[in-house]
Amino acid sequence: MLNPVTEAFVATLRASLPDAAIRPTEPRYLDEPRGGPPGHAGLVVAPGTVEEVASVIRAASGARVPVIPYAGGTGLVGGQVTTQEPAPVILSMERMSAIRAVYPLENVLIAEAGAILANVQTAAQEAGRLFPLSLASEGSARVGGLLGTNAGGVNVLRYGNARELCLGLEAVLPNGEIWHGLKRLRKDNTGYDLRNLLIGSEGTLGVITAAALRLFPRPASESAAFMVVPSPDAALALLSRAKDIAGEAISAFELISGVGLEFLAETMPQVRLPFETPPDWMVLMDLGLSGGREAADVLEQIFAAGFEDGIVTDGLIAQSEAQRQEFWQVRESIPLANKLIGSISSHDISVPLGLVPEFITRGNEVFAKAGEYRINCFGHMGDGNLHYNIFPPKGVDKKSRIHEKSKVQTMVHDLASVMEGSISAEHGIGRLKAADLQRYGDPTRLAAMRVLKDAFDPFGIMNPGAVLASN
Amino acid sequence: MLNPVTEAFVATLRASLPDAAIRPTEPRYLDEPRGGPPGHAGLVVAPGTVEEVASVIRAASGARVPVIPYAGGTGLVGGQVTTQEPAPVILSMERMSAIRAVYPLENVLIAEAGAILANVQTAAQEAGRLFPLSLASEGSARVGGLLGTNAGGVNVLRYGNARELCLGLEAVLPNGEIWHGLKRLRKDNTGYDLRNLLIGSEGTLGVITAAALRLFPRPASESAAFMVVPSPDAALALLSRAKDIAGEAISAFELISGVGLEFLAETMPQVRLPFETPPDWMVLMDLGLSGGREAADVLEQIFAAGFEDGIVTDGLIAQSEAQRQEFWQVRESIPLANKLIGSISSHDISVPLGLVPEFITRGNEVFAKAGEYRINCFGHMGDGNLHYNIFPPKGVDKKSRIHEKSKVQTMVHDLASVMEGSISAEHGIGRLKAADLQRYGDPTRLAAMRVLKDAFDPFGIMNPGAVLASN
Repeated sequence: MLNPVTEAFVATLRASLPDAAIRPTEPRYLDEPRGGPPGHAGLVVAPGTVEEVASVIRAASGARVPVIPYAGGTGLVGGQVTTQEPAPVILSMERMSAIRAVYPLENVLIAEAGAILANVQTAAQEAGRLFPLSLASEGSARVGGLLGTNAGGVNVLRYGNARELCLGLEAVLPNGEIWHGLKRLRKDNTGYDLRNLLIGSEGTLGVITAAALRLFPRPASESAAFMVVPSPDAALALLSRAKDIAGEAISAFELISGVGLEFLAETMPQVRLPFETPPDWMVLMDLGLSGGREAADVLEQIFAAGFEDGIVTDGLIAQSEAQRQEFWQVRESIPLANKLIGSISSHDISVPLGLVPEFITRGNEVFAKAGEYRINCFGHMGDGNLHYNIFPPKGVDKKSRIHEKSKVQTMVHDLASVMEGSISAEHGIGRLKAADLQRYGDPTRLAAMRVLKDAFDPFGIMNPGAVLASN
Repeated sequence: MLNPVTEAFVATLRASLPDAAIRPTEPRYLDEPRGGPPGHAGLVVAPGTVEEVASVIRAASGARVPVIPYAGGTGLVGGQVTTQEPAPVILSMERMSAIRAVYPLENVLIAEAGAILANVQTAAQEAGRLFPLSLASEGSARVGGLLGTNAGGVNVLRYGNARELCLGLEAVLPNGEIWHGLKRLRKDNTGYDLRNLLIGSEGTLGVITAAALRLFPRPASESAAFMVVPSPDAALALLSRAKDIAGEAISAFELISGVGLEFLAETMPQVRLPFETPPDWMVLMDLGLSGGREAADVLEQIFAAGFEDGIVTDGLIAQSEAQRQEFWQVRESIPLANKLIGSISSHDISVPLGLVPEFITRGNEVFAKAGEYRINCFGHMGDGNLHYNIFPPKGVDKKSRIHEKSKVQTMVHDLASVMEGSISAEHGIGRLKAADLQRYGDPTRLAAMRVLKDAFDPFGIMNPGAVLASN
């Protein structure tokens, strides 16, 4: 029952918005980063204020025109791109990119939804503070999308997901009403948690226009280390040991597989690898400390303890910030190497932390039985979150195996589901996983989600087809 | 349109529940801890399983009988007590008090909603872990109520509110359906955040029956210190200085006023006060460290830095765990001293951290103009959360001034509201603040809350009158 953008609808918007808000429909708005078919659009609008956003939503609600909120366009589950009719309005947040205020003493920063993550990080740094959300696309991802998808990244272990980094929101609900909720309070128990309901709803319950974000003290001393481990079990034991020694100071604990290192050697020889013989498994651990202790010393202590316990066999501790960046370069290059190799299917699963090694073992078994595959399993082990990507054997092009995509995805998601895990740890549902959410989700929760959607957005204008498959 | 508990309704429940689930209506179920009129009940039921909870809710939904979820009965805003007709079912969680499982490696514990907080703390401790939620009523408060109200307490600064300590829920929705959501995942981005919607909804959107709770490493070294500060401004500067030195290791930062110390001297002479002359303002700081540093040494370092900056004038660092407990005894005795003195009105407000000193100054001015009052302002300054309690002058009994309660409350809440604060930082809304929520809340958010309530609980059976005043 939705209508396409019409000439009359465009005229209505033109009348209520400045010229700059009406944008040409450039291909970037329609791009699907995972390589799916490009989306389409009846119109791209980029409002400059929350009131202008409200005008757009009110007009869309009145005309029953679908609205696709668009932030950095970096989402990996198709939440920002639709090929579904009728042609929607793409609501880009690019003109609302201000950092409205920074409160260093309160450790709070107010950013508009179009602010780019790297700019938020820089604004925090200039105030002597840390905004800890960090992920590969930070140079283009924007606050609205990061909150809309409850983004994760490499520092969740210590600082939490995007959800945990947000104190308050300004947003426009599907009825066009503005919620002025930019509280900068650490404690505010006054009714239902509308903030967390909008965060992670991927633009299907409203549009976030600005957020009060939490900042943190910058650790006085930071360092990173690669530690070679004999197995994922040993990696888990090392994490536990490291927590005993360093408490909350572990900022990241990333698992890297030998397969990932081979992919790097094969496709990106310019990336310097840390060990001459690529180990089967290694860990990248990042530490940030305050109060006089040197991070490199504590990493040394963790390495020594792990070595003594037989759960670490080799290691390298960064001797400078430049070397630490070089270590991270290895980790951050793996997704590109994966792309160059070409996966049959990529996954973003989580399982309870204690079950990570078992997941890896069982996954190996499942795919060994099913045929010839290479598995690159890596990622945020400290959070129980693995990027578990399936490739054809060496020398075989992905094109000849891409028909297996759906089967492979089901194999991985079945295993995550049976192990009390999640089929989307940090990327969200978008359109690519909407069917799987129905398949694996708790029925009571799915029914409650439908009730929420219908109550907030009775005409179904907000990002239709994302999260909840259209009826 | 709600119906009272009838003989027929009791018979229905008796048929589907074991005898032990039907409880005598003891006065404790009807007690209002803030001294309001006792509630009433048509029946008290205490189910032993989530399926039994679902039976009760289904029966109540079918018969349109109100249900008041009841956990520890320690709530301070009347959320667990109703005097409103018709006589409700009180749904006590006392028979669901098991710790179902502890996963030390994962830092997760699964507790039923009837588990007492102190028992959860002990279970965590026995596993070598910390469950950091801590508040005065921990010997009787239960998990269901703590999550239902998103409880705060003294360690929020470091570990967050109850909300941040919960990974998953098992719950029964108002339609009687069971949500099996006891995930122990740190990352799970699969749709709308039903967990956070139920947390803090004070039993008006469903009943929490069990929770997956986050545990933490126990700090290797802990200590506490009293530091005398010349003013609330100095206390704020000290907090900032302490964060620079100790990072996230500050577990608590509590403000204590001279008035509070006078009240203690007057009513509880057995409590040993730390300084011979009670200072106007002091801070209780608690530190927990891992990795070889002694908490007392770091407190010494913070004290020295504060003294040099002129923001600390005197101090005492606990020399033993016993002395640390003695320090906390002073802090935890203040609410009882307040009760013995007798307040006109007590408040639980928060403001942005940077505005705490200004709130105190402006509050003083407001009450100095209005008449003769004593103000005991104390609490969780590190979170911007003050317990701001108003008393008659010395020698005047509260009874002669209690008629001012509503006026005084409005004065305090007006000020918190105009300073972008909250009228309920950690206690919730319940019934006592439902009218004030309507008065001070954002209209768009209030309308969205009403939409949520109607969508989840169309017959309005769940805790009617709490949070959202009945229509």
